Amino acid sequence: MSQKPLILVTNDDGITAPGIQTLIEVMLSIGDVVVVAPDSPQSGKGHAITVDATLYVTQVDVQDQTHLAYTCSGTPADCVKLAVREILKRKPDICVSGINHGSNSSINVIYSGTMSAAVEAGIEGIPAIGFSLLDYSWSANFEASKAFVKRITENVLENGLQNGTVLNVNIPNIPEADIKGIKICRQAMGNWVEQFDKRTNPMGKDYYWLSGKFVNLDNGEDTDEWALENGYVSVVPVQFDMTAYNSIKTLNTWNFK
Amino acid sequence: MSQKPLILVTNDDGITAPGIQTLIEVMLSIGDVVVVAPDSPQSGKGHAITVDATLYVTQVDVQDQTHLAYTCSGTPADCVKLAVREILKRKPDICVSGINHGSNSSINVIYSGTMSAAVEAGIEGIPAIGFSLLDYSWSANFEASKAFVKRITENVLENGLQNGTVLNVNIPNIPEADIKGIKICRQAMGNWVEQFDKRTNPMGKDYYWLSGKFVNLDNGEDTDEWALENGYVSVVPVQFDMTAYNSIKTLNTWNFK
Repeated sequence: MSQKPLILVTNDDGITAPGIQTLIEVMLSIGDVVVVAPDSPQSGKGHAITVDATLYVTQVDVQDQTHLAYTCSGTPADCVKLAVREILKRKPDICVSGINHGSNSSINVIYSGTMSAAVEAGIEGIPAIGFSLLDYSWSANFEASKAFVKRITENVLENGLQNGTVLNVNIPNIPEADIKGIKICRQAMGNWVEQFDKRTNPMGKDYYWLSGKFVNLDNGEDTDEWALENGYVSVVPVQFDMTAYNSIKTLNTWNFK
Repeated sequence: MSQKPLILVTNDDGITAPGIQTLIEVMLSIGDVVVVAPDSPQSGKGHAITVDATLYVTQVDVQDQTHLAYTCSGTPADCVKLAVREILKRKPDICVSGINHGSNSSINVIYSGTMSAAVEAGIEGIPAIGFSLLDYSWSANFEASKAFVKRITENVLENGLQNGTVLNVNIPNIPEADIKGIKICRQAMGNWVEQFDKRTNPMGKDYYWLSGKFVNLDNGEDTDEWALENGYVSVVPVQFDMTAYNSIKTLNTWNFK
């Protein structure tokens, strides 16, 4: 590429998260970076957009002036929409989201704010990747992620992505030397078994905290869950055409009279 | 079915919306109804879940005691999780969501709170349908929807749905006599072209309202958009395995060294 690629960086943990700082650092070695990220954590926001409230955008002072950065009061999907329509002077060559503090493998792709930003970019025709590290803690160590984030981003810039698809990349939380490589996978079938924690507030009213445990229901060795458990970085191509094409023939035999 | 089916009803417009009242009315003619719906509008919430705040559940007094009803302070996906784990005595035979005030065809399935409730039920292994009427107004006329909602629900109860799929049903906003029938469709390729409305608040700070126009980018005559434009009720089978299987072979040729 003769010109430096324009890279839009966002996330769902908010602009102050260590994960996005690592992502910015890696992207600065590849191209020109503009950050548009939520001003507060947006985990679990799925593909939410803000239709009933105002959106604020604030430019952030970047000390070494290596890139431009903005915070947005909305969701990750709002950030991408605002970046594309209002902030960026041209369509970015790629959008990267993350690095998320915590897994977005298997069914988590559905709940993930990180992935919703990537999907939103994909809908806009922008090649996009969501990156996640399997460590929920704020002090997660992103060192081992850097090389993989760079390699995968460069591949997407070089090869492009099939129209209507984005990538969901998850990185195991192990030392770089122990990571066996990158595996292209399918989304494992799994779900969360919720255990609501029921409490009573000081006014005597019951309330719940949502918590639960992820259960992998898939024995396949071609899934993201298998790859991550076996020391690989998982890459799942994700599409936002959600049509279950295999069901169409059966549904056409139904009697709707 | 010898026993009456147990039907979980939810939506994203909130429990006071006329759309859910119509859905309850139709479901009471089919089975035993339990309503667990948001206590406030949740449009555009995508597949958001509440991970960082408390959830309140309040039983609602149903005047004629035809069914049980609860409001929940969370998102549509939270409602389904709470219903399944905390409120219902057994797994429901079906979950219906809606009737949404406004379209959830094409790419709207991604942003839709209505569909996120159906998808959440699907993840739990419950057959599920999201219903939407192509009229955003609160005073929308749901009369023509009733017969179609009933027929489709009865078909799902009778035939079941393929594992990992739910239905996205959209109903055109025309008189019942003009509706030509029910069409099984694929999700049309389309997107929203946002036009942010930029304003200045009384304190001198700029803010935005998200608005925009849906653009159908798909000429196919097998899409939900085509069906709706041509007077049909559209039924799209929706899957939550988002893997783009067609991309896996290509990605395996990439060089990640």
